[in-house]
Amino acid sequence: MIRSIVPFAALAALFLTAAEQTQAATRAPPSSNIRQHSDPKPNVDWDSFGFSMNGVRTDYMWLNRVEAKEGDNVMQLIADYSASPNDCLSEFGTFQLSPAATVLNYGQALFEGLKAFRRVDGSIALFRPERNAERMQNGAKRFLLPPVPTEVFVSAADAVVRANSRWVPPFGKGALYLRPLLMGTGDDLGVKPSWESTFCIYCCPVGNYFKGGLKAIRLQALRGFSRAAQGGAGHVKASGNYAPAFFAQRTVKQRGFDDLLCLDAATGNLIEEAGASNFFAVFPNNTIVTPCLNSETILPGVTRVSIIELAVRECGCTVVEGPIQLSDLHEACEAFCCGTGASVTPVGSVSVAKIDGTEDKEECVIFGDGTTPGPITQRLYNTLLTIQTGTDEDLNQRYAAWIHVVEP
Amino acid sequence: MIRSIVPFAALAALFLTAAEQTQAATRAPPSSNIRQHSDPKPNVDWDSFGFSMNGVRTDYMWLNRVEAKEGDNVMQLIADYSASPNDCLSEFGTFQLSPAATVLNYGQALFEGLKAFRRVDGSIALFRPERNAERMQNGAKRFLLPPVPTEVFVSAADAVVRANSRWVPPFGKGALYLRPLLMGTGDDLGVKPSWESTFCIYCCPVGNYFKGGLKAIRLQALRGFSRAAQGGAGHVKASGNYAPAFFAQRTVKQRGFDDLLCLDAATGNLIEEAGASNFFAVFPNNTIVTPCLNSETILPGVTRVSIIELAVRECGCTVVEGPIQLSDLHEACEAFCCGTGASVTPVGSVSVAKIDGTEDKEECVIFGDGTTPGPITQRLYNTLLTIQTGTDEDLNQRYAAWIHVVEP
Repeated sequence: MIRSIVPFAALAALFLTAAEQTQAATRAPPSSNIRQHSDPKPNVDWDSFGFSMNGVRTDYMWLNRVEAKEGDNVMQLIADYSASPNDCLSEFGTFQLSPAATVLNYGQALFEGLKAFRRVDGSIALFRPERNAERMQNGAKRFLLPPVPTEVFVSAADAVVRANSRWVPPFGKGALYLRPLLMGTGDDLGVKPSWESTFCIYCCPVGNYFKGGLKAIRLQALRGFSRAAQGGAGHVKASGNYAPAFFAQRTVKQRGFDDLLCLDAATGNLIEEAGASNFFAVFPNNTIVTPCLNSETILPGVTRVSIIELAVRECGCTVVEGPIQLSDLHEACEAFCCGTGASVTPVGSVSVAKIDGTEDKEECVIFGDGTTPGPITQRLYNTLLTIQTGTDEDLNQRYAAWIHVVEP
Repeated sequence: MIRSIVPFAALAALFLTAAEQTQAATRAPPSSNIRQHSDPKPNVDWDSFGFSMNGVRTDYMWLNRVEAKEGDNVMQLIADYSASPNDCLSEFGTFQLSPAATVLNYGQALFEGLKAFRRVDGSIALFRPERNAERMQNGAKRFLLPPVPTEVFVSAADAVVRANSRWVPPFGKGALYLRPLLMGTGDDLGVKPSWESTFCIYCCPVGNYFKGGLKAIRLQALRGFSRAAQGGAGHVKASGNYAPAFFAQRTVKQRGFDDLLCLDAATGNLIEEAGASNFFAVFPNNTIVTPCLNSETILPGVTRVSIIELAVRECGCTVVEGPIQLSDLHEACEAFCCGTGASVTPVGSVSVAKIDGTEDKEECVIFGDGTTPGPITQRLYNTLLTIQTGTDEDLNQRYAAWIHVVEP
């Protein structure tokens, strides 16, 4: 029934200006028309999904274009974002953008990633969405985009999950990945913040990163590549931080490694993070070290901060946020990465090579047998998964604040 | 007459799939229908234009969406870009983009900037467009986008200038600024190069940067901000390099300065470039120094390389491409920036402040009286302008290769 708006929209376009067509394209159908699909869509091979669009077209997206205005403080922009599904939910699809949009010309774009899980009790929940909202607000201040208030961010995420709930995989079969975007979409050649901001959330079902048990990955660091520098924007989840690493990512994958390990720009000896996840090393006496956030080069991961808390509270570890030299890894018992995509990923080995292809064999460190996750890594993975899927009543109670129930 | 395609396109959209509509939106009218407007559009206040869209909607843009494929070398992508105006010229306006497009999510975007001038003989010409084509190719290799061949780039630029020639300002009144974009527009959540590449050129008339004589600008460097780092992508004209500097740009402008001066991330003492232009300092004995390109932090400006050549050949200077410490500026007689936007811009003073607002007075250097351009700066500006506008027969002959005539 919802599909019937398409011909109407096209017909209406005949009588609209370009600006009005753009508006019309983002118009939502009345929310009363949105069917609720509480059960997973039938006849879908959920196990086949990776981290991509998977050929799937989900039903609805959130799209809200608003004017970006200067507030009392010229260094911080403001906007009246809507929290109304009627205004902002539309069928998933393309939208109209000017080639002069600031996002295309000057990279004024932030993104987030969060997952909606089907829990053991049949409910659908998001994991700590307020944290994503806060991170996007911090990025918006740094990028002179009007921040989206937490309540708007979370209610938009809620609405997107509800409107696409048949795309939330069955319990244990993955998650519905939500991708919020905040972009400067106004058309203006000038090298300055956009006069229009667009807040969008689209979504896509993704499979379990590990099908059948954890498997350690092999990381390679590339001398001659740096992801971020002090004083830069590497700590912001900005779109523009990722494409510059495509080359390095593909280089290590071509050499048979699973992911890139990024070293600091200043010395090339400090570990910063993996391609798109935070890095942790486990040392003797249950001491865990992860790079601290005060260098403007480390992404403040939601999984990162959760793992730090779980390591202390649930595993009796000491967690140090501080520098990890490459050479320190020789003393480490385990290493792992964490992020929304792969939750906790054991690291089997770390090697270092020059970007031109010369591998530096001395600096290869293997953790354990190089394939089996270490005990702390395994325990953290299990604990996080248990909390996300709600399979332990005790943890459910202790971490109730981390679980945002969308559909009971 | 051309406008009549709009209702047809909208009507046709009723019978097309979403993918076909996207294609249709980029379809060009037959080139035989494109009116040639050799004279500047009447009743336009060309003197009022700055570097922005200026409320102007030019007539046509180039838009070519193609599949990005892996070549023999998986590290370099290839695509069949069209050089046909019939395929690629369409009315200037918005285009359809998926929210999952790689450019929006991961910043896979490059841009260029070049100007079409009306010369004294009535011809319209571009300044060294092959250089822009080559720079975009280098960026494409670094960002895993399929490079646009030079002949396609230049013939697309030609076609855009011809189709919009009534928007080329009269002689001496500015230029038609062309903005080529190369973007990964395929929809794919995965953190990897896009399966679709879009090459676009839109344009906009811009006024003279200096109305009535050169005026020196005041630069401020901010400790605690860095634009680029060794091993990064600061040498690529990538969209994602610019929005991270909005904050620093606005900070110095709020304090009354004209532009930001960027220092190196590693030491904070080396001058790299201004907000969006290259930096030169003139020392005694006509020795000019500008930062060298081997650090992956300096944009290889087309104006930069042209100025280096003109300084040597036309002004009898010695040019050194090497480091400039902030403290070296005390020995300098003149300083200037250069870029496509403002050609040659005299620098009146350089100061240094912390990003939190503490200005470091000792490090303020004033060149001459702080407002009048130095003699070398003035001469380089005049020489470049003379070559671009074709007002000297001798220079016309010596630099004929720099002038690409679009319309004789």
